[in-house]
Amino acid sequence: MRHSASHVMAEAVLSIFPEAKFGIGPSIENGFYYDFDLPRSLTPDDLPVIEQKMGEIIKADLPFIHKELTKEEARQLFASQPYKLELIDEIPDDKVGIYEQGAFVDLCRGPHVNTTREIKAFKLTNIAGAYWRGNERFPMLQRIYGTAFNNQKELDEHLAIIEEAKRRDHRKLGKELNLFTTSDEIGSGLIIYLPKAGRIRAIIEEFWRQEHFANGYEILYTPHIGLSKLWETSGHLDFYQENMYSPIDIEGQDYYLKPMNCPFHMLAYKSQLRSYRDLPLRWAELGTVYRYERSGVLLGLMRTRGITQDDAHIICTPEQMNDEISEVLRFSLHIWHVFGFQKYKVYLSTHPEKSIGTEQMWSDAQDALRKVIDENKLEYEVDEGGGAFYGPKIDLKIEDALGREWQMTTIQFDFNLPERFDMVYTGADGKEHRPYMVHRVLLGSWERFFGLLLEHYGGAFPVWLAPVQVKVIPVADRHLDYARKLETEFKSRGVRVEVDDRSERMNLKIRQAQLEKIPYMLVVGDKEAADNSVSVRCRSGEQMPAQPFTSFLETISADIANKV
Amino acid sequence: MRHSASHVMAEAVLSIFPEAKFGIGPSIENGFYYDFDLPRSLTPDDLPVIEQKMGEIIKADLPFIHKELTKEEARQLFASQPYKLELIDEIPDDKVGIYEQGAFVDLCRGPHVNTTREIKAFKLTNIAGAYWRGNERFPMLQRIYGTAFNNQKELDEHLAIIEEAKRRDHRKLGKELNLFTTSDEIGSGLIIYLPKAGRIRAIIEEFWRQEHFANGYEILYTPHIGLSKLWETSGHLDFYQENMYSPIDIEGQDYYLKPMNCPFHMLAYKSQLRSYRDLPLRWAELGTVYRYERSGVLLGLMRTRGITQDDAHIICTPEQMNDEISEVLRFSLHIWHVFGFQKYKVYLSTHPEKSIGTEQMWSDAQDALRKVIDENKLEYEVDEGGGAFYGPKIDLKIEDALGREWQMTTIQFDFNLPERFDMVYTGADGKEHRPYMVHRVLLGSWERFFGLLLEHYGGAFPVWLAPVQVKVIPVADRHLDYARKLETEFKSRGVRVEVDDRSERMNLKIRQAQLEKIPYMLVVGDKEAADNSVSVRCRSGEQMPAQPFTSFLETISADIANKV
Repeated sequence: MRHSASHVMAEAVLSIFPEAKFGIGPSIENGFYYDFDLPRSLTPDDLPVIEQKMGEIIKADLPFIHKELTKEEARQLFASQPYKLELIDEIPDDKVGIYEQGAFVDLCRGPHVNTTREIKAFKLTNIAGAYWRGNERFPMLQRIYGTAFNNQKELDEHLAIIEEAKRRDHRKLGKELNLFTTSDEIGSGLIIYLPKAGRIRAIIEEFWRQEHFANGYEILYTPHIGLSKLWETSGHLDFYQENMYSPIDIEGQDYYLKPMNCPFHMLAYKSQLRSYRDLPLRWAELGTVYRYERSGVLLGLMRTRGITQDDAHIICTPEQMNDEISEVLRFSLHIWHVFGFQKYKVYLSTHPEKSIGTEQMWSDAQDALRKVIDENKLEYEVDEGGGAFYGPKIDLKIEDALGREWQMTTIQFDFNLPERFDMVYTGADGKEHRPYMVHRVLLGSWERFFGLLLEHYGGAFPVWLAPVQVKVIPVADRHLDYARKLETEFKSRGVRVEVDDRSERMNLKIRQAQLEKIPYMLVVGDKEAADNSVSVRCRSGEQMPAQPFTSFLETISADIANKV
Repeated sequence: MRHSASHVMAEAVLSIFPEAKFGIGPSIENGFYYDFDLPRSLTPDDLPVIEQKMGEIIKADLPFIHKELTKEEARQLFASQPYKLELIDEIPDDKVGIYEQGAFVDLCRGPHVNTTREIKAFKLTNIAGAYWRGNERFPMLQRIYGTAFNNQKELDEHLAIIEEAKRRDHRKLGKELNLFTTSDEIGSGLIIYLPKAGRIRAIIEEFWRQEHFANGYEILYTPHIGLSKLWETSGHLDFYQENMYSPIDIEGQDYYLKPMNCPFHMLAYKSQLRSYRDLPLRWAELGTVYRYERSGVLLGLMRTRGITQDDAHIICTPEQMNDEISEVLRFSLHIWHVFGFQKYKVYLSTHPEKSIGTEQMWSDAQDALRKVIDENKLEYEVDEGGGAFYGPKIDLKIEDALGREWQMTTIQFDFNLPERFDMVYTGADGKEHRPYMVHRVLLGSWERFFGLLLEHYGGAFPVWLAPVQVKVIPVADRHLDYARKLETEFKSRGVRVEVDDRSERMNLKIRQAQLEKIPYMLVVGDKEAADNSVSVRCRSGEQMPAQPFTSFLETISADIANKV
């Protein structure tokens, strides 16, 4: 139905721009698009006009008619459509399919709905530029996105989510809340975290570290560059070089910015002789790696060139593997719960055709992954043969407040690096053995995780993360002393507080604090100063009952302790 | 006297190696050295032989005789000494001074003691290689180091300190305690911090962050690379390029590893309009920068290529400057005290001839620095004209447990970057003003600070920093349950504990825990398990009285809280 809607949109565009050249017009998740080569640039004002035409076409209840032509016939039919001619040339068969409705005919395999009337509820959502075939050396076309649903209610719900997603766009919120910035002087995909984001990051990183320590992890710190030798041993220069940056020359030797932390952890392992008594080792690092991404695909915090991964490497004996994987999964879900994410999907990717490691290793590893998923009573999908050549993996997709899914956590076996670095431990039998190794990223990357958090909370961070937790707003200058007294008491309890001491109107101050999404605003005047109380307003606009200051201090301290 | 001792050493060497060629032989702090070109490599066994000869020369009470020669006469005298001939050529005068004692004559300005007998107590300490003129393109000579004092007692004290410094060498301790490692595969001057050091670093960094937050600082996180444009604006490509690494090419543009964090903080400042109401800003970052150092000068943690600076930039109005500087100094000394450093020296470096900024700015800034030193009643030395071209500064030299001084903290005005980045704020008058800016490093760099800490504590970190704070040692296997019970209770109180559950002899376990410099060892047997008590041994070997477990838990919790 969405694909049919794209044909209807194309017919509408053709009726407005008879000279239009057509690219492709597929259906996509929740919608569709079509790429056009038009005599002028579209503006948002064009969309209602196109929508009206589409309405007329739908109302006319035109049938979608399928035909098969020879290539030669098709070439004649699309003689004035250069993009279609290109597509025709690439079809291996001699026969090509077309679909026709009303005045529009398209090269198309289908299928389609029977008539245009079956398109129940639709909406054109936005216009974007798109290179023909996604290649910047080809012409830039104009892409119109639309969406269609079985009824108006579903469409409205979908549009509401899109609207909310726009309001929560992390780039927009990042600017409004002064969280991060980028600069042409620094270069694309490189982020400066401003003080408020720096505060949140410091809180989360410390939480992350303490949770890791409490769960038996240790933390390493490793350099950001390493000699070519290292990346040859690890295989990155063979298999990953297109994601790495050009080398730095130091005294005639090539150093590379690290695209991954792993090789440094392997060397840390090899810095000492290891015995089975030392295992399992659980080594984590918040290491910033640098990976090449084309500037065209960079997107806010979601796709950057500097990526702070919350890596861990678990190095263990074969016997320890089951328990270790189980712990990693449990630990990951625990952390996601703390950040308010309750829903996730689990994907298991298994043995591909081309791989290293023995059959035994693969089946042990896959059994361990499957068993752990089962023990945790999680539903999952299997991507048969979808593992990397070096091992099977579990991926977690996390669902956010808007129901969108984000691929974040990966738990991945690696049979490759232990071989390449010749990692061994002495077993209870006195002989050398090769350990198993699992890579894990939990939050994924700090950059992307922070972007997700921002959108998930819509910038209204829970109290324990809010850069400013309380704004004290004196009604008049004479209440400033009382406000300062509260400030001192908050600070002594580790509560992040600001006093708005400007000579502005109270309502303006409240509005500004609300825009900053500060959880609590305390408005203090004569009454509050007299009986040591506070009048508390939440950022939602809700007014809490007037209460003694000490009682509010307990409330907010509990919020912080409970991470809400 | 030390310079005279170097001549005596040279005479002794000459008597053993008549064909010796002589480089230079100055006095240095606490000692002297002489560089020789000899027919064979010296070994430590040679030193007593040379010392004995020196003893004979000293006993012979030979006078030091000064003469002046023409250059021509000197050239004849030193005809067989190529290094001396080089030095003679460089003397601008026609007259050159020589000193003669016994069989040895040296090109030398003096002064010297009267006779060799005035050299009271001496010792040759070690042998090292040293390039002629410190340049690796010239021949490698053999350098003998020695030391001399007015009496045997002073000499013995000095030698004891040298011995202790060797025992505390951070490279030796780093290996013994498994704290850090380096690797030829990564490259020189790049450090991997292993789990125990990672733990200490995480503790110190969190302490550093909390102290900064509590003292009104905010924390930024910035990338490790930036476009050439940024380093042109900042002036680094003009004035600092020899310390920077070769560029990385990304899509045809040059990016450089950052040698400093400052330019990123300047851009953070410029990401918003700033008003006088926003100032002062105190922005700190634990940013890892990369600076070129010749591989020959790299030294353990003390001189590395990756340097994690604890930078801060204080941006303020001229009126705020005095208070800000005062706070920076107070804060710095506070932090040093926490780490157990009580003694320091203060150096003030002032207006050099070549500089930027107005006379007013320089005198304001210098007055502020001087005033703050005076207010804190600190003694200081002035290095007249020793400031950088962009501003005056205060340096703190910290004295460690062995009485050695370390240049760590710098508080430095910068009139340059605010100009180059055109930083402004809107004053109360509604006009644009240029802010003052102060750079500060407090600990200096994490690498060097950690090296200093290691040597200062001799690896026996105070309880709050010790990676493992308590080792529980069950006397026999049947006491393991009790040991595990203690472990659980310690962990629930956040105490870092390990149980030595190996089937080894108790004395071996105690010895190993002592070698690991773990603050407390709890040996638990029948008696302890029966009455819930512990028998506590300190790493010093001292035995604490037997006590209830709860009482020890209070003791160690207090240690941690009080940072001892």
